[in-house]
Amino acid sequence: MKSTATPLTDVRAAIRSGRFTGHTSGVAQDHVQGNVVILPETLAADFLRFCQRNPKPCPLLAVSEPGDPMLAALGSDIDIRTDVPRYRVWKQGEIVDEPTDISALWRPDLVTFVLGCSFSFEQALLDDGLRLRHITEGKNVAMYRSNIATAAAGVFHGPMVVSMRPMSAAAAIRAIQITSRFPTVHGAPIHMGDPALIGIADLAKPDYGDAVAVMPDELPVFWACGVTPQAALLQARPDFAITHAPGAMLITDWLNHRLAIF
Amino acid sequence: MKSTATPLTDVRAAIRSGRFTGHTSGVAQDHVQGNVVILPETLAADFLRFCQRNPKPCPLLAVSEPGDPMLAALGSDIDIRTDVPRYRVWKQGEIVDEPTDISALWRPDLVTFVLGCSFSFEQALLDDGLRLRHITEGKNVAMYRSNIATAAAGVFHGPMVVSMRPMSAAAAIRAIQITSRFPTVHGAPIHMGDPALIGIADLAKPDYGDAVAVMPDELPVFWACGVTPQAALLQARPDFAITHAPGAMLITDWLNHRLAIF
Repeated sequence: MKSTATPLTDVRAAIRSGRFTGHTSGVAQDHVQGNVVILPETLAADFLRFCQRNPKPCPLLAVSEPGDPMLAALGSDIDIRTDVPRYRVWKQGEIVDEPTDISALWRPDLVTFVLGCSFSFEQALLDDGLRLRHITEGKNVAMYRSNIATAAAGVFHGPMVVSMRPMSAAAAIRAIQITSRFPTVHGAPIHMGDPALIGIADLAKPDYGDAVAVMPDELPVFWACGVTPQAALLQARPDFAITHAPGAMLITDWLNHRLAIF
Repeated sequence: MKSTATPLTDVRAAIRSGRFTGHTSGVAQDHVQGNVVILPETLAADFLRFCQRNPKPCPLLAVSEPGDPMLAALGSDIDIRTDVPRYRVWKQGEIVDEPTDISALWRPDLVTFVLGCSFSFEQALLDDGLRLRHITEGKNVAMYRSNIATAAAGVFHGPMVVSMRPMSAAAAIRAIQITSRFPTVHGAPIHMGDPALIGIADLAKPDYGDAVAVMPDELPVFWACGVTPQAALLQARPDFAITHAPGAMLITDWLNHRLAIF
């Protein structure tokens, strides 16, 4: 599936039918991908405020009408019940299942939130000629729970999750310029250099994704990450929630170019 | 003289009369200041190519007609013979004098080059609420000869001189965004983090300017510096050249805002 030649319609059909259940990094790479959070309507207002107060980790691309599984804002034929490769079902803050289809779990009170994802800015970095080690090595990006607190809203609070990419100083400077153009997919980094300053004790032990080496002439560069709401779900322990599985994102009709602010 | 209330005409009159002979950091701070290189016409073409090939350290703001001491492109009444607070006179690559007026040295074959200066982007950083330690401490910025080679042109070659400002990671990220808007005053940094990677053995021993401390939670951030031509003069050893004295810049009529590209 990791071919630039695979059209979006074929990718979506493969995901919808359950034939494609993996990570979407590099898949339909010109298209915006999104982090997904699905909550009962009783929690939706809290979560909307949480996103508004934490725009770096939680940049909202779309919010569905309650009970409506279609996401017309993001594409002409996106059904959130089937179009994510792999989901996580949460009960009282625990992951109870990782299905590839949530049609049987759908309810008329569910609201879907789609948040921007770093895959969009990674494509812009690759297009500029930068190399990303986790992609070269075929890994999921390394993610860590930092000691940076999110701004709480209702039941939602917790640490900001960050993704890390090792870069030379020159590449980091260029990456800051490029990602600053994409505020709706996390924008500029939130930290670089010493990981201990944001509460990360060991880069070799990510909380999500896969570790990659940081070379002596490189800086670890940290971006706010769309997995942050999953850390907030751990703390809020709502009765019921559904998210995407990290790395297995919703692929939208939008083109990444559309997100650049200049 | 370090008052925002001093009008440009008064500042220029004080410099022209020899009453003001010091550093221009913070003086007429809304106005673009420039590094100055004055060369015989026989070397002017070489130096123009040197600037074209090294736009980060040598961003050209203006070049005079041969023999013309006026710089109409930069202001209605700028006379390069009198309007720099302190000059350096070079013979065979050695500094032989530091006068405050070069009227007696003027020749009909001299060409003036004015290069952008970091004071313009420093003002943009201060306006954004960032703090710069050398300014807080009343020092000249620390400058170092790096091991980054400039691209040679004719007789001109040598190491890139860089200025260093210590910053937290968050401030460095913001400073990269801001300075990227100002390509004609050195633009984005060229390095950050480990100084040894660009051949700087000891930050406490700058080659020009004054040392400042780098705190444990800070990164040293390095910008290309307009003192680079002075390092090239050391190597080229031309019979005759005049520059500004580091920190004592030409103040132009231009407003810093004018240099922002977006």
